[in-house]
Amino acid sequence: MQNQKPSRDHSCPPETVAELGEFGFIADLRRRLPPASGDLKLGVGDDAAWWQPESGSGILTTTDMLVAGVHFDLAYTSAANLGYKSLAVNLSDLAAMGAKPACAYLSLALPAELKKIWLDEYIMAFLGLAAAYNVQLAGGDTVAASELVISVTLNGLVNGLASKNKPVLRSGAKIGDDIYVSGTVGDSFLGLQLLQGRLERSDIDVSGATFLADRHLRPTPRVDLGHRLAASGKVNAMLDISDGVVADLGHLLTASGGLGAELDQAAIPLSRPAFELVTAGLTDCRGLLTGGEDYELLFTANPAVRSKISEIAITAEVALSRIGRITNTEKIFMSVNGVTEELSGRSGYDHFQD
Amino acid sequence: MQNQKPSRDHSCPPETVAELGEFGFIADLRRRLPPASGDLKLGVGDDAAWWQPESGSGILTTTDMLVAGVHFDLAYTSAANLGYKSLAVNLSDLAAMGAKPACAYLSLALPAELKKIWLDEYIMAFLGLAAAYNVQLAGGDTVAASELVISVTLNGLVNGLASKNKPVLRSGAKIGDDIYVSGTVGDSFLGLQLLQGRLERSDIDVSGATFLADRHLRPTPRVDLGHRLAASGKVNAMLDISDGVVADLGHLLTASGGLGAELDQAAIPLSRPAFELVTAGLTDCRGLLTGGEDYELLFTANPAVRSKISEIAITAEVALSRIGRITNTEKIFMSVNGVTEELSGRSGYDHFQD
Repeated sequence: MQNQKPSRDHSCPPETVAELGEFGFIADLRRRLPPASGDLKLGVGDDAAWWQPESGSGILTTTDMLVAGVHFDLAYTSAANLGYKSLAVNLSDLAAMGAKPACAYLSLALPAELKKIWLDEYIMAFLGLAAAYNVQLAGGDTVAASELVISVTLNGLVNGLASKNKPVLRSGAKIGDDIYVSGTVGDSFLGLQLLQGRLERSDIDVSGATFLADRHLRPTPRVDLGHRLAASGKVNAMLDISDGVVADLGHLLTASGGLGAELDQAAIPLSRPAFELVTAGLTDCRGLLTGGEDYELLFTANPAVRSKISEIAITAEVALSRIGRITNTEKIFMSVNGVTEELSGRSGYDHFQD
Repeated sequence: MQNQKPSRDHSCPPETVAELGEFGFIADLRRRLPPASGDLKLGVGDDAAWWQPESGSGILTTTDMLVAGVHFDLAYTSAANLGYKSLAVNLSDLAAMGAKPACAYLSLALPAELKKIWLDEYIMAFLGLAAAYNVQLAGGDTVAASELVISVTLNGLVNGLASKNKPVLRSGAKIGDDIYVSGTVGDSFLGLQLLQGRLERSDIDVSGATFLADRHLRPTPRVDLGHRLAASGKVNAMLDISDGVVADLGHLLTASGGLGAELDQAAIPLSRPAFELVTAGLTDCRGLLTGGEDYELLFTANPAVRSKISEIAITAEVALSRIGRITNTEKIFMSVNGVTEELSGRSGYDHFQD
């Protein structure tokens, strides 16, 4: 803490985080932020933010921490992608409970030598995604550190839902429920393999490679879908896929009291590029089911409400696939060409043991 | 991310964070947490926490990030002290707006080699302080990192207050207002100097040294005082002292539209150990006014309500000192033995430029 601030000509704009300074950053940020509006009465600038949601609303809160070198690699993750994704993963958590996102809090631990232009790009992308979902950046903290760490907390509301505005938990699955997944599965895992050079770009066409990398770097949080599913009152249990289909389904089954599941491999939704990589023998369906970070929604519902679920898929403009059903076996099985196999390993990605 | 998990005899309990694992940590934590109760309907374990505050309540949210080597030094900060302080600084922010704290979210970036016993001690101290203020730990995140980073977000409520449950902002000071500060000033700064060896322990008696170190390591958040002051409707502007009296008063004056202040040095409240160090010429009053992290409350009120403020001090059992008044000068002056001096430097501690 004894380092001297680098001396620079004061006519130069700041180039690094150290030159910008904490108060400079906050001043910059406040110039970019729209004034607090709607339910947010007071945003960045006081000891705390003041939010006055509609009476009777349930408040949902989620938080995620991302560390350079652990959760992302700055070698292939741009500031803009990271700004987007650090909010998107929290939006996905709220989507998985049916909440409407409202106020975000962004804390950044920044290396002193980080470029100001990097930080600008990060903030612009964060605020861009926030605006798209009517989220206001209401507060946060900025500190110095030797490695980049991002912590985002997001508040949302549950209201306008069936069952007295109760969010959809992961613990409500019933034996006999259908299991659904939104979108396609495993793309983020394949995108990461491409970005890390563990899959060759020559193994896949350019549009496919771009699609897969984008699915890793810029996953789409299923906010509208999650809210519609929750509002219908027809969904028994829901979560988002961050650790992989098998691991997250395992979390849902455990939370629901130790249930099991039977999946049908033929029903697992794959994107065109993923399908081609499977066909070429460069990946397999089980790998795609254990790869994480799809940020799709996985949920269960009684077979009697299939037509209602189909309607929601159409309204929300997101494909939903019925991939199996809930059983009482405490295990996950998958039917592959008429043969039933047990899927091993529910544990998923462990952030401490990588 | 290719490191192998260390192989250990499974009969041994885990010694490090790497051996404990993320899911082991969460399982440990859930065993220690009381079940969600009251307004908190769902705590740790789902995609988000679900909080259902009383209708019409304002939600106040604050967040702070602490980094090892920047905000604390593990050489003299125990896990228990850090567990306490990482929540206390957030409690202090809510106190400064008059809010009652409710739900905390704790995110930890943990080095793999960190001892599990350290983490246990940290969590126990965090939960101990939380329980003392009726705060429930409702969620969080745990990730691996090369350095220890702590991010705490705290939600609280404003209700039962005057003026339609409006929190007390830092921007409401009026010309002519009295300026008050709670407790004593500069103790945390002196405690830090003792802990860093920049003041000799031989310069001060044992009880004084312990008091000062404790004021740095375990500051008391003025939650009850802040709520009573806000509830009275008599306070015009308030914040907590984290950057030092001069810097934080500067923030308040700027936020209130560019006002000034005149302080009376004789009215600055010093603890007995601080007073003795000043008398011995080992520190001076101006140093104590610029040292940070007292986490006392600084507020302004019209001179007409002095007796009401005195009553609150007695009820809350916290000493309040009237240290000066708000002026229209845009500067901070201090009267020292009848001579008026300008206090320089409102900028305070800059976390990027230390």
